Amino acid sequence: MRIAIDGMGGDRAPQVVVDGVVMAAEEYGYDIVLVGDKTILRRELSRYKRYPDNIYIEHASEVVAMDEAPAVSVRKKRNSSIAVGVELIKSGEADAFISAGNTGAVVCSATLGLGLLPGVERPGIAIVFPTFKGVSMMIDVGANIDPKPLHLLHYGIMGDAYCKFILNKQKPTIGLLSIGEEATKGTDFVKETHKLLEESRLNFAGNIEGRDVFTGRCDVVLCDGFVGNVVLKVAEGIGGAITKLLKSQIKNSPLAKIGALMSKPAFMRLWRDLDYSEYGGAPLLGVDGNVIISHGSSTPKALKNAIRRGAEFKENELNKRIVEELESY
Amino acid sequence: MRIAIDGMGGDRAPQVVVDGVVMAAEEYGYDIVLVGDKTILRRELSRYKRYPDNIYIEHASEVVAMDEAPAVSVRKKRNSSIAVGVELIKSGEADAFISAGNTGAVVCSATLGLGLLPGVERPGIAIVFPTFKGVSMMIDVGANIDPKPLHLLHYGIMGDAYCKFILNKQKPTIGLLSIGEEATKGTDFVKETHKLLEESRLNFAGNIEGRDVFTGRCDVVLCDGFVGNVVLKVAEGIGGAITKLLKSQIKNSPLAKIGALMSKPAFMRLWRDLDYSEYGGAPLLGVDGNVIISHGSSTPKALKNAIRRGAEFKENELNKRIVEELESY
Repeated sequence: MRIAIDGMGGDRAPQVVVDGVVMAAEEYGYDIVLVGDKTILRRELSRYKRYPDNIYIEHASEVVAMDEAPAVSVRKKRNSSIAVGVELIKSGEADAFISAGNTGAVVCSATLGLGLLPGVERPGIAIVFPTFKGVSMMIDVGANIDPKPLHLLHYGIMGDAYCKFILNKQKPTIGLLSIGEEATKGTDFVKETHKLLEESRLNFAGNIEGRDVFTGRCDVVLCDGFVGNVVLKVAEGIGGAITKLLKSQIKNSPLAKIGALMSKPAFMRLWRDLDYSEYGGAPLLGVDGNVIISHGSSTPKALKNAIRRGAEFKENELNKRIVEELESY
Repeated sequence: MRIAIDGMGGDRAPQVVVDGVVMAAEEYGYDIVLVGDKTILRRELSRYKRYPDNIYIEHASEVVAMDEAPAVSVRKKRNSSIAVGVELIKSGEADAFISAGNTGAVVCSATLGLGLLPGVERPGIAIVFPTFKGVSMMIDVGANIDPKPLHLLHYGIMGDAYCKFILNKQKPTIGLLSIGEEATKGTDFVKETHKLLEESRLNFAGNIEGRDVFTGRCDVVLCDGFVGNVVLKVAEGIGGAITKLLKSQIKNSPLAKIGALMSKPAFMRLWRDLDYSEYGGAPLLGVDGNVIISHGSSTPKALKNAIRRGAEFKENELNKRIVEELESY
């Protein structure tokens, strides 16, 4: 197993990436290829007196900035850590590629560089998150902001395969995000998608509303990439706001402060349960290769988990399964 | 001041509505008109040995169910509590109408019954919610799920007037919900709306992302009604999920339980701060009359606050201000 990871991508790259890579190399024993400027990456690795010898560096002379326009960066920076990482999958030198860098650039680079799976018209970013009933996923959260109903059907089929072969769910339920449960609710796009899903062989649970996204009511929640991206960031924003408010409330009351210290282990478990980034990253479904997009603010542990996830996709031949499922429709 | 309220609307109507009306009648002294089945409402009121004599009943023989199709209900149930309440504003017998009933039916009934303000093409539901920096608002959260860019410009102008004349904000900032801060980010609809807002005299702060909706970064957040409705319900869902998780975590640890009890006053303040329903309801902006849509699960206190809000709209002549603002553009 050989996993490539973008050494230059993320808000605190390359430090955080290198830390995650060292953890993963020790824990899993895979060959791990850090992609990026070799001088910088060597210097980062040298912070460790001794690091596992299953870590390799693949030089890439350019870096795509987090706020750079994706299409332009892909065209102009042929030697970016993202482009080189994608190339490593294409040539078979790596089994998966992980990046916490510019999401748009990863989507663009992977789509152009690897092509799409037979039958797929557009890739979709799937996030996997914890709920009361185990993990669920939402597709798409930003790769395709103006999709056709057919694209969402494909996301449904890919999500279904992901649930079966990666999450080991027997008969995953697929929900369509809308503003009411009735088939008549929503935009024309949602209504047409509803019809397609209903006619499919998927275990379609109908429309679900915003309040049910994070309760685990469905295993897969489908939506267009604009709505999915907004929902994801709203959830992140609320998480951050609640943490901040709790801290300020507690700071103002000595009694609450003592109480909070006593409750801390319970709260830490809660935060861990809610921290979807711990799942490791968001698979880019539909491209012909195992690509995982991690959050820009990923911790070393999250990146370590993303590396594990990439290996799982290879082990379970996720893309082969997806192609089989798509062909059977 | 004479405020009408839908006695039959809401998940726990008429009990909760009657309780809110009694509180409001005592606290504010306005004339309050309960609209609905007079036998049922009289029986509810009779739970109080003595209730304020500034409470009146206006009979309405029909009720629109919470899940009824709005257009059909408006056409068929001419004597619903919603239709009769709207008629009371139209005839000048009430200064505002509040309903916690079927949102779609209220929007439909108010739009057809009262007409729109000059210059407005579509009404918008505005929710007002607490943030770190005082209250903010989001328009639209479900009245208009497939708007034109011009509709969002109008929502911006109406939200600006609301902030100035109801919330007493001097130079409210207007943000457009998108998937990135750059003007180039988002769907064609968002990009066109961005352009219109930029060319307007509004204090346009540009695009904002989902994570900034609830932080108070902007006084007014604009979006289409589909996205707004999903965001609102996601926020509600997360709030509910966190409460449930906290409770279960705390239940499993005696130490956490004691700690939680000690921290309780701080948490209660937090929940109160976060409970946007306490603001009382969502104004339906753009219709020619003061209409407030309350949450189906509103508490008596939330409905009392909605009644206060309705009176404020009348006192501050909100709609007159909105028309002046629209005309000046």
